[in-house]
Amino acid sequence: MPVFTVGCELGYRVAVPTPFVFNVEAAQAASQRVLTEQLTLTPETPIERWQMPESSNRYLRFLANEGDLRVRYDAKVELAQAVFDPLTVGEIVAAELPLEVLTHLYPSRYCQSDRLTQVARRTFGDLAPGYQRINAICNWICDNVEYESGSSDVLTSACDTLIERAGVCRDFAHLGIALSRALGVPARYVSAYAYRLDPPDFHAVFEAYLSGPSGFAWYLFDPTRKSDPTGLVRIGIGRDAAEVAFCTPFGDVEFDKPEVWITSDGDATVPITTEAVVAESR
Amino acid sequence: MPVFTVGCELGYRVAVPTPFVFNVEAAQAASQRVLTEQLTLTPETPIERWQMPESSNRYLRFLANEGDLRVRYDAKVELAQAVFDPLTVGEIVAAELPLEVLTHLYPSRYCQSDRLTQVARRTFGDLAPGYQRINAICNWICDNVEYESGSSDVLTSACDTLIERAGVCRDFAHLGIALSRALGVPARYVSAYAYRLDPPDFHAVFEAYLSGPSGFAWYLFDPTRKSDPTGLVRIGIGRDAAEVAFCTPFGDVEFDKPEVWITSDGDATVPITTEAVVAESR
Amino acid sequence: MPVFTVGCELGYRVAVPTPFVFNVEAAQAASQRVLTEQLTLTPETPIERWQMPESSNRYLRFLANEGDLRVRYDAKVELAQAVFDPLTVGEIVAAELPLEVLTHLYPSRYCQSDRLTQVARRTFGDLAPGYQRINAICNWICDNVEYESGSSDVLTSACDTLIERAGVCRDFAHLGIALSRALGVPARYVSAYAYRLDPPDFHAVFEAYLSGPSGFAWYLFDPTRKSDPTGLVRIGIGRDAAEVAFCTPFGDVEFDKPEVWITSDGDATVPITTEAVVAESR
Amino acid sequence: MPVFTVGCELGYRVAVPTPFVFNVEAAQAASQRVLTEQLTLTPETPIERWQMPESSNRYLRFLANEGDLRVRYDAKVELAQAVFDPLTVGEIVAAELPLEVLTHLYPSRYCQSDRLTQVARRTFGDLAPGYQRINAICNWICDNVEYESGSSDVLTSACDTLIERAGVCRDFAHLGIALSRALGVPARYVSAYAYRLDPPDFHAVFEAYLSGPSGFAWYLFDPTRKSDPTGLVRIGIGRDAAEVAFCTPFGDVEFDKPEVWITSDGDATVPITTEAVVAESR
Repeated sequence: MPVFTVGCELGYRVAVPTPFVFNVEAAQAASQRVLTEQLTLTPETPIERWQMPESSNRYLRFLANEGDLRVRYDAKVELAQAVFDPLTVGEIVAAELPLEVLTHLYPSRYCQSDRLTQVARRTFGDLAPGYQRINAICNWICDNVEYESGSSDVLTSACDTLIERAGVCRDFAHLGIALSRALGVPARYVSAYAYRLDPPDFHAVFEAYLSGPSGFAWYLFDPTRKSDPTGLVRIGIGRDAAEVAFCTPFGDVEFDKPEVWITSDGDATVPITTEAVVAESR
Repeated sequence: MPVFTVGCELGYRVAVPTPFVFNVEAAQAASQRVLTEQLTLTPETPIERWQMPESSNRYLRFLANEGDLRVRYDAKVELAQAVFDPLTVGEIVAAELPLEVLTHLYPSRYCQSDRLTQVARRTFGDLAPGYQRINAICNWICDNVEYESGSSDVLTSACDTLIERAGVCRDFAHLGIALSRALGVPARYVSAYAYRLDPPDFHAVFEAYLSGPSGFAWYLFDPTRKSDPTGLVRIGIGRDAAEVAFCTPFGDVEFDKPEVWITSDGDATVPITTEAVVAESR
Repeated sequence: MPVFTVGCELGYRVAVPTPFVFNVEAAQAASQRVLTEQLTLTPETPIERWQMPESSNRYLRFLANEGDLRVRYDAKVELAQAVFDPLTVGEIVAAELPLEVLTHLYPSRYCQSDRLTQVARRTFGDLAPGYQRINAICNWICDNVEYESGSSDVLTSACDTLIERAGVCRDFAHLGIALSRALGVPARYVSAYAYRLDPPDFHAVFEAYLSGPSGFAWYLFDPTRKSDPTGLVRIGIGRDAAEVAFCTPFGDVEFDKPEVWITSDGDATVPITTEAVVAESR
Repeated sequence: MPVFTVGCELGYRVAVPTPFVFNVEAAQAASQRVLTEQLTLTPETPIERWQMPESSNRYLRFLANEGDLRVRYDAKVELAQAVFDPLTVGEIVAAELPLEVLTHLYPSRYCQSDRLTQVARRTFGDLAPGYQRINAICNWICDNVEYESGSSDVLTSACDTLIERAGVCRDFAHLGIALSRALGVPARYVSAYAYRLDPPDFHAVFEAYLSGPSGFAWYLFDPTRKSDPTGLVRIGIGRDAAEVAFCTPFGDVEFDKPEVWITSDGDATVPITTEAVVAESR
């Protein structure tokens, strides 16, 4: 099992005492095990913690006093990678979908799947259902949307991206989610430490709920094709970026560009591939 | 404690075997107790049930065979109404909001609170925080949006309603939710059996999370001012209408106009008021 | 030169005296000659006429009194059809475009070409410039958008149609115009009596400004592929449907479904084709 | 009659030969007389000129070679200001509007008046028609929209500004135009040299078509309240910013921040006021 060393260092300048919520810690899930971790706040500040049951997201909140604030996270995470044959992973008909995942079929703020039914059917409706169809959505996005820093902003949605054909990882994930849901496949947004992402940064990918050889599971997809899918360490999960932020300050603060890192402790010679993918059974 | 007799009868014509998900049963919650209830499917069909932990929504799913389908629900529900003084109900600062309600601060498909920060602040920012401010939002919506059947559709969002100034209960609730969240107040969508709604129908209202004399709780608001707030029997709760439907058929079906009813078993002489409101502590 | 008999009969019920503007008369242009025509108002009403210089649109206005109003138009129109080889018709570089057509490069209400630059380039950018490229846009629209009565409304724009992939002739024309402009080709909206359109109705098509064997001219395109391009009798021209309406009542009136007709006085055996097209040199 | 000295200096770096269209010269109109003017291109380049009949906009086009390009314009312009009593200026009923101005009632790319009918009626419908009502629209915009550099971009429309409540002069003008049209008042976008605008820049204002003591005319409005309305030297007129740009390069070029100036040759002691306004009779 490969082990990744991940972390981030975040800097803020706080003018008045301000509550912060962070979601930067690696998720604890069947598919990834946090071996060691450490969170350091400078200055030291009492922290309140909460793990969301339906997503396992780990939130921490504290009240930052005025002055400089530094948040540093370090962890070693083991990924339980299950390499599989994409042809063995199919879609799940509505009658068999667990009722608790239905919520990931619905349209959300930045993933207006309710408007994309026709475009999804016309573009991908004739493909065989399954992992390869969601992968075809990712290929289409990668081929038809320009990855361009600064081309989108926090209000940009999947419909905007489909029209304007430019965006960043967040927008690529939103469009992938919206098209998957429009085909009847539950999909959700995932923030992650992404191995080999260049330059290193918090990354956004998505998961689709499919039926594999060992049962139903969430499968990861990165339509930017910029990360190594065998090296994605999940942080937060949600309907879309509206629900997944690494930092939510409740007030105006200045901030530095985040420093983010991920290295592989094992053999890091595997090339980036879209075929070997990690399944998480939840 | 007043008791309401509620129910609905829904008719469908199914051309090919089709999975259905329903959410028509009254919620079981601290603020309302289901005394008796009966669900009848014609023809009889095996049912799968699931209650969503984070919302208490009660879902049922079954596979309808081709032919006519009738779904009838009957219940007696007791409402634990807590009449209170609105002036005693305040807003909750970000540092004290329970982390599990943060999700109801985020923008959602039909409630784009992220675009409405300025309009919310400019219109309601100078009012004292609390129940009365959310009530002022409702008054503003009722005064500035035309309630007009057929003026909106399933794609209509709070931004559309703010621009076009026409809608139905769903749209009024969405705008109320979006403006509340834009002010930093968690808000969520509620479908309900609504006493004195004329003509009777499934109704849509919203709840805001506020701090009352007995602690934090969700408070009901009906910006249409068309129902009796002391006679709202909750069915489903969600981020917005995208997550709350009384019926989701997975396929094309024909349907009749729903029949919906609610009567009061007790003294029904209380006039419709916006002042006496039921709090649900969850 | 083929001659077409065209006309319409329009009925209104007017509750209070209401000004009306109509644009139903066949345009008088180099490419079409109005041989005879008659306009009948019942009851008889004094008419004010105006022909817009930049479009040659013929407007008439009158004040309708309360009661029933009927407007009937009958005309015989000769079309000066120039069948040509599409391969001889190219695009015009910006340095050579007559400055008076630049206005048809700009985005308009329903044709947001400013948002479609990337999608136009990515989908049609590699095709050889010219008539065949605009024709490829029409083929793409016809193949990728569902023609579906009732699927759109008066607010629907080219961006909506590109997202939702359904519309009527108006929407097909808007998308064709927007994509053409996004490629740098001036394009404008045309309302027309359309030979062989079934059922008969006012039709919407578009024109692109191209360089043919006899010079620069506006070339007609019907992305719905529902009319005979050799039998399009132009009525009004504008940036998009916002500027081209057959009837604009300034007040609330009830109206009947319009009756519209067009028959060919000559040999009407030519099949519908996209290859033989009429050029108008203006 | 006051005389203003206006001008601009624009710098570009052109990588490949590129056609440019400029519209920076002061309009020649009944309300303003260009006394002297000079346009200098460095390097010297042959220019093609065209004046649009329906707007009197003066366009010039040339092919810039690779290298640096500088465009400088200098002019002295006399404004024929007609100070009037706002109470004597009314609106024009549809039956009496000249048919050639109807086009300025229609929605355009950035002024979606078709969506704003209700909001315009509900906010301004009870005010007496006339100059003062359009002025009330401007006051409302100035009071309810934040003037904030960088808060909008070239895709921002009146609906966006109404929702997000932030923008620059272009957005203020668009919202003023859209609300005026929604009330049935023809309105159009005007670019101008604006006296006392600080910092100096090309400015955007709008005109509404009203009925004054000397007949129908276009009246200027600046909802930003940042310029002196007695010192607006018109450059270009159009449906909205889509049709009015001071520079349109047909290719990618680098450009400097424009230098723009306007000084008064006469007595410049009149304070900025919204009451004394210049009418242009066209």
